[in-house]
Amino acid sequence: MSVLERQADDLERDMRALAGAARQAASVLARIPADRKTAALMAAAAAIRHDRAAILAANAHDMDAAGGSLSAAMLDRLLLDDKRVAAMAQGLEVVARLPDPVGTELARWTRPNGLDIARVRIPLGVIGIIYESRPNVTADAAGLCLRAGNAVILRGGSESFHSSQAIVASLKRALAEAGLPPEAVQLVPTRERAAVGMMLGMADLIDVIVPRGGRSLIERVQRESRIPVIAHLEGICHVYVDRTADLQTARRIVLNAKMRRTGVCGAAETLLVDRAAAASHLPPILADLHAAGCEIRGDAATRALDPAALPASEADWTTEYLDAILAVRIVDGLAQAIEHINHYGSHHTDAIVTTDKGAAARFLDEVDSAIVLENASTQFADGGEFGMGAEIGISTNRLPPRGPVGAEQLTTYKYIVRGTGQVRP
Amino acid sequence: MSVLERQADDLERDMRALAGAARQAASVLARIPADRKTAALMAAAAAIRHDRAAILAANAHDMDAAGGSLSAAMLDRLLLDDKRVAAMAQGLEVVARLPDPVGTELARWTRPNGLDIARVRIPLGVIGIIYESRPNVTADAAGLCLRAGNAVILRGGSESFHSSQAIVASLKRALAEAGLPPEAVQLVPTRERAAVGMMLGMADLIDVIVPRGGRSLIERVQRESRIPVIAHLEGICHVYVDRTADLQTARRIVLNAKMRRTGVCGAAETLLVDRAAAASHLPPILADLHAAGCEIRGDAATRALDPAALPASEADWTTEYLDAILAVRIVDGLAQAIEHINHYGSHHTDAIVTTDKGAAARFLDEVDSAIVLENASTQFADGGEFGMGAEIGISTNRLPPRGPVGAEQLTTYKYIVRGTGQVRP
Repeated sequence: MSVLERQADDLERDMRALAGAARQAASVLARIPADRKTAALMAAAAAIRHDRAAILAANAHDMDAAGGSLSAAMLDRLLLDDKRVAAMAQGLEVVARLPDPVGTELARWTRPNGLDIARVRIPLGVIGIIYESRPNVTADAAGLCLRAGNAVILRGGSESFHSSQAIVASLKRALAEAGLPPEAVQLVPTRERAAVGMMLGMADLIDVIVPRGGRSLIERVQRESRIPVIAHLEGICHVYVDRTADLQTARRIVLNAKMRRTGVCGAAETLLVDRAAAASHLPPILADLHAAGCEIRGDAATRALDPAALPASEADWTTEYLDAILAVRIVDGLAQAIEHINHYGSHHTDAIVTTDKGAAARFLDEVDSAIVLENASTQFADGGEFGMGAEIGISTNRLPPRGPVGAEQLTTYKYIVRGTGQVRP
Repeated sequence: MSVLERQADDLERDMRALAGAARQAASVLARIPADRKTAALMAAAAAIRHDRAAILAANAHDMDAAGGSLSAAMLDRLLLDDKRVAAMAQGLEVVARLPDPVGTELARWTRPNGLDIARVRIPLGVIGIIYESRPNVTADAAGLCLRAGNAVILRGGSESFHSSQAIVASLKRALAEAGLPPEAVQLVPTRERAAVGMMLGMADLIDVIVPRGGRSLIERVQRESRIPVIAHLEGICHVYVDRTADLQTARRIVLNAKMRRTGVCGAAETLLVDRAAAASHLPPILADLHAAGCEIRGDAATRALDPAALPASEADWTTEYLDAILAVRIVDGLAQAIEHINHYGSHHTDAIVTTDKGAAARFLDEVDSAIVLENASTQFADGGEFGMGAEIGISTNRLPPRGPVGAEQLTTYKYIVRGTGQVRP
């Protein structure tokens, strides 16, 4: 056996030990009452605040190490400061105040033979979260998993390794102080890339994998995982301006959907305008966007109305810019808009602006996306905006959970059947 | 390019064309009203009855071809006769009468900013079903998928190839007569094993894979699939007889759970008896089983009470016999019973017999299975017995759908958000 093989064996053994401890903790957590989980989450917030200096020192270590290799934008994502540490603690308090989804009776009925059947919400078990550089995800994701009674195995970005270690140390101490098993929050203790592959293969110890990051990470996880994945693919979000759209509403929604924040998954990437409204609506909409510093890439009809627009290529219809760039196409009415969205989109979030109730109903029905909106900005694609308090991401899975994934979506159910001696004829 | 490569290319092209047609049909089906799907299902039942002679002739062809290579039990599974064809038609009528799950509002709420958010049930889309020899699954599975507005791609056992072709021909004609796209039901037109691998890779055209069959099929599908799987793993089901169990109730439930039908997934495979009740309860329970022709494989304590019991080995605790064999262990009370079930079981269906409400509550809570029962036979693990009308199997997935999978479980949801011009601050 070579040294490398021995190291891989050691890593595999360590990873299985860590996941096995999480599995044990999950079976304890599953029956901890709501108020004790709430207390642990409040304790975790207090611990993060108390350990601010240590967390910032660890983050400074990460920032120093990353300085040469990361872009300014990536460095900003990695950076923690007083305000961001405070926001992490506040986030845990928000999650602590969320209702506990565990134990809810989702349905209950009695059969003619007297069997009483209930479908009851239970935790998922052990959740593996694989994410990229933002260290605050460490606290956010752990908090949401705990709220729903799950243990979590965190594999953060290698750039944020020390920051995440410091955050997890605080969380573990808070759990122990609150009388909960500290093994409920586990951080993969290595930057070895092989550890990710090992996680994806431990179907006996991990119940679901949640990847958060760029397309290549998600695709690798989907390709390699032997464990079900709650995936958050890109958001190729559309706004369709119908021929009956109120112009001021359309201007406000398009500008917000694109420019409020360009780096979020709910940001619009493509604008579709009904040909019948193009001459009246498109120039003022594009004027707003140009004024806000947005680059326009249009089809030929768009460019005929906007000399400043660059030509759009086929690739523009499938690109998540996450930037101040918008692809614009003029379509022959509602049917073509729906066809475009279902063909080029990512089934994430799409909106129609219209005053025609029939057109709205058809759009909401036929656009095959997790979230469809009538006369509202695509940037509402967010668990907080949906009233879930917090989210771990927007699932683009077809099977549930789909759309924003909050505490409730990190659960599953079991059937509890109560009889009085019934046997099956 | 070799001849074999060219053939593989041809097959891949045919499979993608077939799945693409199913995808198109699914988008039509998704918006067909309930009554038209009901009419199509009734037409399908009538077509099966009308085509009885052709279906039986095709089945005779399959039976002839299989004669030399299959066991008597397998041949019986493959055989169709007048009664079985009639049962297929009746099964479609039962499904036709089920409520249409599509369009149900699962939740609806209004946000402080006035956004009206609804979570609405929609079809899953295209469902790939991979199953073994019983040809009636062809009609049952297609019916249930249609009820929930899904298109289906069926890959039956190669032994039932001609039977399935005849059944699908009837179903397609009924769909066309009812004005629905016949492409909503597709049968893989080859016995080539490679076709299964191709199905498992078409994540852009198939939304979910449902394997029905033995362990090796399920494991192959789980290993190879790039598409989410609703898996039905084996049922290592337990009955635990608690120290407070009523003896007559325990006798009735154990005998039924094991012997009513031994070949179903909800059949009990292991009996656990509380040591405090072993001397009083175990001998009469085992006497019933011996009288019914059941082989007993017991631990040492069981064999001390039953000289006819064979010794159980470690493998017996994890074997799905699907036969008149029962593994029996005497345990040190409830905690050890729960530990045994969670360790050796398959998280499918497990029952407790007790008169102690506290023991029942703890068992129902802590046994980590899709279905847990108090004082009822494990053989109630069945969609029909749950009141779902029909089922495609019992899902042993951790994520939903879990437990019996009926029409409602073959759906997903989308969020419909209605606004009046809201933008996100």
